Amino acid sequence: MSVSLDPVNIADKLSLIDELWTQRKIAGLNDYEIKLAKLKGEFVWHTHPETDELFVVVSGRLTIRLREGDVVLGPGELYVVPRGVEHCPVAEEETAVMLVEPVGTLNTGDTGGPMTRAAEPL
Amino acid sequence: MSVSLDPVNIADKLSLIDELWTQRKIAGLNDYEIKLAKLKGEFVWHTHPETDELFVVVSGRLTIRLREGDVVLGPGELYVVPRGVEHCPVAEEETAVMLVEPVGTLNTGDTGGPMTRAAEPL
Repeated sequence: MSVSLDPVNIADKLSLIDELWTQRKIAGLNDYEIKLAKLKGEFVWHTHPETDELFVVVSGRLTIRLREGDVVLGPGELYVVPRGVEHCPVAEEETAVMLVEPVGTLNTGDTGGPMTRAAEPL
Repeated sequence: MSVSLDPVNIADKLSLIDELWTQRKIAGLNDYEIKLAKLKGEFVWHTHPETDELFVVVSGRLTIRLREGDVVLGPGELYVVPRGVEHCPVAEEETAVMLVEPVGTLNTGDTGGPMTRAAEPL
């Protein structure tokens, strides 16, 4: 088996992302994937009925609106949205996040719509 | 369902860790856990036959020795050790890492020995 010896530099990978709200895969972990995204503005309310979703804020400021209240995350902070919990990510300034979730999890969950994107490798 | 609205601050959690090489759980993600650890010195060569292992360096500098060569990680860099690949983490200075892997994955993998620790919640 040939093994890569190259680390993944998060800032370098983020510099390659132009489009907002589009998750890009940077590594795989079993049947999970590690993804990066740049967020600005308000996303759509949605739910992932089958999986929890990990958000780690790299830069900026992310508000994850839940029906129960807001979760506000700065750099170096993380939050796991439990499966089945409706949420809406909002970022007033451009915000970079790392996500971990099972392969194939769509950004818009069960809501779909025009902002739906598959996570392409970066 | 009652949902926590509190983010997890990685630096705050790290400040609570005294013991080196001991992974502490800070969040769950389905049947995976997100853990923090402080590393300094040389660990033991080991393998996780059943799972990949994600390392994200928060501060310091981590060398992951593989039989094929060294992977060197600084802050904001990550690496996934593929399942079955023998590795030995080494940190010359005190280094803080975030790990993601399935619940119950032991730090020493299939090697065991006196440095084996279960990941306790923080």
